[in-house]
Amino acid sequence: MNGVSHDLLVPPPTQLLKERIQVPQKRLLMGPGPSNCSPEVCAAGSLPIIGHMHAEIFRIMDDIKVGLQYVFQTENPWTLVISGPGHLAMEAVLVNLLEQGDTMLVGVNGLWGDRVADLAFRIGAKAVRMETEPGNAFSLQEIEAALVSSRPKVLFLVHSESSTGVMQNLDGVGDLCRKYGCLLAVDTVASLGGVPFSVDKLKIDAIYTGSQKVIGAPPGIAPISFGPRAVEVIKGRKTPVKSFLLDMKLLSVYWACSPGDVRFYHHTPPINLFYGLREALTAVVEEGLPAIWKRHEENANRLRDGITGMGLELFVKNPADRLPTVTTIRVPEGLDWKAVTKHAMEKFDIEIAGGLGLTAGRVFRIGLMGYNAYPEKVDRVLAALKDSIKMAKY
Amino acid sequence: MNGVSHDLLVPPPTQLLKERIQVPQKRLLMGPGPSNCSPEVCAAGSLPIIGHMHAEIFRIMDDIKVGLQYVFQTENPWTLVISGPGHLAMEAVLVNLLEQGDTMLVGVNGLWGDRVADLAFRIGAKAVRMETEPGNAFSLQEIEAALVSSRPKVLFLVHSESSTGVMQNLDGVGDLCRKYGCLLAVDTVASLGGVPFSVDKLKIDAIYTGSQKVIGAPPGIAPISFGPRAVEVIKGRKTPVKSFLLDMKLLSVYWACSPGDVRFYHHTPPINLFYGLREALTAVVEEGLPAIWKRHEENANRLRDGITGMGLELFVKNPADRLPTVTTIRVPEGLDWKAVTKHAMEKFDIEIAGGLGLTAGRVFRIGLMGYNAYPEKVDRVLAALKDSIKMAKY
Repeated sequence: MNGVSHDLLVPPPTQLLKERIQVPQKRLLMGPGPSNCSPEVCAAGSLPIIGHMHAEIFRIMDDIKVGLQYVFQTENPWTLVISGPGHLAMEAVLVNLLEQGDTMLVGVNGLWGDRVADLAFRIGAKAVRMETEPGNAFSLQEIEAALVSSRPKVLFLVHSESSTGVMQNLDGVGDLCRKYGCLLAVDTVASLGGVPFSVDKLKIDAIYTGSQKVIGAPPGIAPISFGPRAVEVIKGRKTPVKSFLLDMKLLSVYWACSPGDVRFYHHTPPINLFYGLREALTAVVEEGLPAIWKRHEENANRLRDGITGMGLELFVKNPADRLPTVTTIRVPEGLDWKAVTKHAMEKFDIEIAGGLGLTAGRVFRIGLMGYNAYPEKVDRVLAALKDSIKMAKY
Repeated sequence: MNGVSHDLLVPPPTQLLKERIQVPQKRLLMGPGPSNCSPEVCAAGSLPIIGHMHAEIFRIMDDIKVGLQYVFQTENPWTLVISGPGHLAMEAVLVNLLEQGDTMLVGVNGLWGDRVADLAFRIGAKAVRMETEPGNAFSLQEIEAALVSSRPKVLFLVHSESSTGVMQNLDGVGDLCRKYGCLLAVDTVASLGGVPFSVDKLKIDAIYTGSQKVIGAPPGIAPISFGPRAVEVIKGRKTPVKSFLLDMKLLSVYWACSPGDVRFYHHTPPINLFYGLREALTAVVEEGLPAIWKRHEENANRLRDGITGMGLELFVKNPADRLPTVTTIRVPEGLDWKAVTKHAMEKFDIEIAGGLGLTAGRVFRIGLMGYNAYPEKVDRVLAALKDSIKMAKY
């Protein structure tokens, strides 16, 4: 058949037969994500697979859509899930909003802004970098000045710069973008659900987040939402979107986002991850956003108090700029940070992360997200950090 | 905090609270994929989540890599998984191999070739369409003539045209591509694992498949492999890849594909889907490819005999061009095909698919893949088809 003989060029790899899959059962994920999932969310991942055009999956997708409209606090009909990680949602925002030669203004104060600027360059757009030191956020004045000088089609801001632990205040930015005739796109991968937020009140035109952070679902899919001004820009494009999978004009039909949309086969999405997200969103709705926001704030304060209480310094100087979901701690001079994270993992089975990009070697990062934002976990990670630093010092 | 009040603009959606997630437990998926997973693979989906930079996930990724080298029958070091559906693997092949203005020759005899040509256009390459009727494959002579006239950088062929049920014979095509100095890229989404095949013997330079077809893992990730000639082209690119997530120069490092690669954080992959794929590949290695190929051939023959035995006609005329994993059946004149598939689903909880693209309304499609390619399932789907056609006729 097909002329290929049945003789095997590559023999069966015996390493797959030696043992079944081995996964640690009790690891506590206190890095910047993925976070641990609840038992209910984990269990949903092994429900039977159904087809991507079956009535039951459409119902689950509809549930996910309204759940996400709630978490995003938006009435955007184009609220759905990208079938890939948060990185792919970033690409979806850029390839849909930008065409060859368009200008995007990007706030760069850590890894994520830098990544967005790189991606704009890759797809043939012009990225203007508005920069500040890692650990700082941008003021409204800085943003307005950059809008005036660059006159972009899109302003891109990272709300949760998880590489530095900075939260960008977005009050008034939406109005500025309307004043200067540009769209506002925002990355909330590490924050959405964990801080008071409303896409519509903040006048954000395009936004995405991760499934595996505050929402508490498995990684691999990314919630996204486009507002009416963004939809208009997408519908008025002169050139096709440089991706089929990410073309929102098609994908939004599969998600039946607009009245009259007749769902058609677009791609086969990760059905099991949809199950997990549906379960995770149910838990979010049950607890309620205000309670979840409060829980994250209280536990972030408990964590910060514990950190400063053991003589360590928070990396983000301005308390108003501190992200509750990812706390960054300055690595004390002379301390072997790798020995600390290694010890925390080996002795306590707890993940504490190092820095990323410009903060590599300079900070520890502790995540408090969703299922992990509870006092007992704060206390466990603080105890592990204390013991691990003590160990690394001697 | 961030100036957003805790008042909710969007109230909690009560539809998520009315009931927990509802998924049919016993549905038999006999369409062109996704296929049913084994209980072991399903169970793996709910193992605890670990981090994307933990030693345990690297070990699982290494196991997946050697498992995929076995299924692809290749020694390519750049053999890994794209963190997205098969569609994204298609995009990965194109954005890595093609630059602005490059020419790709695409065999178009159904939906998939058409999709590839569309995608080439989207990313700024030139797609030359080599066409034949749905239900036909391309001869070596046709391929050589098209290579001579178009002199492409890449020849793209769909090995398993699941919209028509055609399998493309690839014998000799690799040699032709070397003769005319182009790369050979192949889509095996619906076939890999189910028919005798070797990437290296066939001299294929870039190839991908789906997780949710013959391999029997959940949907949402896509195995891919690039040979040395493709790697050379990728490393010699003059312009950056139009995607960060799909940039193989970066992704291959996260997968530690080359000696000396030091894994770095690239993106957060769908950890749970990796678990499922690892389990599915273990089962493939346990049974062995020759036995799996034989099982698919035998059950495809059983299915075809049953179909012709009830007076129905196979859509693909040439027996040598028939894909064992997706069998297409001509819809008898005057028969309401939608009533047939609906009845099969409602009465038997069995998925039988209609056509796709140019075959819509013209064929039924029955998939026999992995966990479902067994005589008892063939007999169940045949019985359901017979009863449903009888019902639709009267």
